[in-house]
Amino acid sequence: MKPISIWQDFQRIRAEAPLVHNITNYVVMNTTANALLAIGASPVMAHAIEEVAEMAGMARALVINIGTLSTPWIEAMFAAGAAARQRRIPVVVDPVGCGATLFRTSTAQKLIESIKPAVIRGNASEIRALLHAGQPTKGVDSLCTPDEVQEDACALSRSAGCVVVVSGAVDLIVEGNRVARIGNGHSMMTRVTGMGCTASAITGAFVAVNASVFDASAHAMAVMGVAGEIAAERSQGPGSLQLNFLDALYGLQESDLVQRLQAQIPE
Amino acid sequence: MKPISIWQDFQRIRAEAPLVHNITNYVVMNTTANALLAIGASPVMAHAIEEVAEMAGMARALVINIGTLSTPWIEAMFAAGAAARQRRIPVVVDPVGCGATLFRTSTAQKLIESIKPAVIRGNASEIRALLHAGQPTKGVDSLCTPDEVQEDACALSRSAGCVVVVSGAVDLIVEGNRVARIGNGHSMMTRVTGMGCTASAITGAFVAVNASVFDASAHAMAVMGVAGEIAAERSQGPGSLQLNFLDALYGLQESDLVQRLQAQIPE
Amino acid sequence: MKPISIWQDFQRIRAEAPLVHNITNYVVMNTTANALLAIGASPVMAHAIEEVAEMAGMARALVINIGTLSTPWIEAMFAAGAAARQRRIPVVVDPVGCGATLFRTSTAQKLIESIKPAVIRGNASEIRALLHAGQPTKGVDSLCTPDEVQEDACALSRSAGCVVVVSGAVDLIVEGNRVARIGNGHSMMTRVTGMGCTASAITGAFVAVNASVFDASAHAMAVMGVAGEIAAERSQGPGSLQLNFLDALYGLQESDLVQRLQAQIPE
Repeated sequence: MKPISIWQDFQRIRAEAPLVHNITNYVVMNTTANALLAIGASPVMAHAIEEVAEMAGMARALVINIGTLSTPWIEAMFAAGAAARQRRIPVVVDPVGCGATLFRTSTAQKLIESIKPAVIRGNASEIRALLHAGQPTKGVDSLCTPDEVQEDACALSRSAGCVVVVSGAVDLIVEGNRVARIGNGHSMMTRVTGMGCTASAITGAFVAVNASVFDASAHAMAVMGVAGEIAAERSQGPGSLQLNFLDALYGLQESDLVQRLQAQIPE
Repeated sequence: MKPISIWQDFQRIRAEAPLVHNITNYVVMNTTANALLAIGASPVMAHAIEEVAEMAGMARALVINIGTLSTPWIEAMFAAGAAARQRRIPVVVDPVGCGATLFRTSTAQKLIESIKPAVIRGNASEIRALLHAGQPTKGVDSLCTPDEVQEDACALSRSAGCVVVVSGAVDLIVEGNRVARIGNGHSMMTRVTGMGCTASAITGAFVAVNASVFDASAHAMAVMGVAGEIAAERSQGPGSLQLNFLDALYGLQESDLVQRLQAQIPE
Repeated sequence: MKPISIWQDFQRIRAEAPLVHNITNYVVMNTTANALLAIGASPVMAHAIEEVAEMAGMARALVINIGTLSTPWIEAMFAAGAAARQRRIPVVVDPVGCGATLFRTSTAQKLIESIKPAVIRGNASEIRALLHAGQPTKGVDSLCTPDEVQEDACALSRSAGCVVVVSGAVDLIVEGNRVARIGNGHSMMTRVTGMGCTASAITGAFVAVNASVFDASAHAMAVMGVAGEIAAERSQGPGSLQLNFLDALYGLQESDLVQRLQAQIPE
């Protein structure tokens, strides 16, 4: 993975301002929208069953995030997903808290089965729970290391037929047996709510402009990690990190990627 | 429009802390409430059908924003609007994303017809969509310049019988054939989600303390623009802009208005 | 109340990362989650009737906040509260806007009667409204001083059988006739939305690690006040206060508590 390839996607997002339709959770709607705006994309949030298919029909990517789930929202997720699939626009599914409750695990599994997403992005325990329902997780936090779940991620990628991204100290991007690793980021990012959700939303913007879902997903995670590092260096804590992260996304330069990228890619 | 008149409204808001009832979207609730608090108003968010009429009955202005619409919320918007109309408190309607889906356009049109708002505030494409249903917009962003929609804004003002505010590089405030223009603001504000929604909420605070809806709306847009400029000068990107904007609203001085106001008003 | 006791709770939160289940309002979900993360706790937001009992069953504390109430959420609050009670995990109830509408007052009263919370935390007018239904409050702001409501707080504590916390310029922590006072904090905090909601959430984290509900509640309010002071000293307004507050929570030192704590406790 070369910085120039990431940068080309990034510039395309800025130039084309792809509309990314988000059906996401209440906690992160504001920060997710701001992150998409900061990189130059056009976010829209809409969840009413009356309009989701029409909205997904205008968008270039759909991001579905189950962080604060309820029945009417689930119906909208299925309807939007069906519209996206029909129009062949990529869908990113973020199974927030999957494994914490049967409701979340079951909903995430059904969504993935029905929608056939282009990308599933979660933390290690969420990805693991998608494969091994029944093992409880501790809320929305991750209990296993990325290495422990690489096998699961590969298995999920094969069974779901999509790219699987596992966020962690080292991010994994998996497609079948192909694995890329991104070592960027900063531990303080785990103290800001919704950083994973933001990664999923940003992945939506990248898959909107790059037909290689694997590359786009890896590029998105690289941008998250590099912007997170830049932001953490300027921050006294998670409050300032949250805003410095948006500023870093907004002001990201190709040279930042060149200097900082820590990526391992398949040969 | 003179800075002193804007300042008088501003001081009245700080002194009287008018209660502004918001039925708004999930994305901006936090920033909207914070902007109202920063200028000295008292925000309340309430959307349950069981309480909206009672809450609107206590408020001095009602702000209805359709950014993340669903059926139960629409019912609450009509009920709150009816209560506001009965009590003759001013209502501001923000038709977020109007034109993007039939559901939004139709809901906004019905709300305006039923509630008879004092102010409609949107971007150019939203205002245009209210008049010319069927022309799709690109999500919540504007595709037309303020000049192109001035005619539409005047037509909408006449047909809806209210003040129409069109946000853009130059803001238009229209009542019938009367047009004021505010040239303040900064392009970086378009990279922060909900700045338009904040403008609508702040307009709610101004119409609560100034019986001239036209003047109050223009004053609100002037304050938005001047505070946005001050904030942008202090900011590295949209993350810091968001917080500097709240600080600028909080610390706004009459001298800021005197030095910065770029307004054209009808003679 | 000694700084060392507060610090012990704080370190326990950082070490154990207790899962705090929040059913709270849309306005503050993001800032509440971030505040819990900043002190080292693990927040989870979940409100679907299908999962709240299961989620509350994993958590070490439950925080119920009625700031943007609606019927489905109320059902979830009762279900989660029942699960928490059965598992004997502490529940904090925040009666936001209680007194403003009959719907809120009645819901808050029924929740408290049914759930038997460990802590009720509100501002003076909310606490007063819980005892004297029928006296309208002005939205979510407080109209009475803490001293005026101490008698009410004690009465509520006795009738509800729990700790009552009244936020204000001086915070009151009441259990029966026992009263502690915390004089920390800063007036600018009242210009940031959801600071009270954050106090309730943080109280959830403290009662999760300290079996003395009275001590835990007082410790939580002390941390809120001290972090608020530190943040206010670094801030130009409520925008920067919001982020500096999270940074101050994150970076809090025992020496900050030693130098700043202004507490009066029962002998």
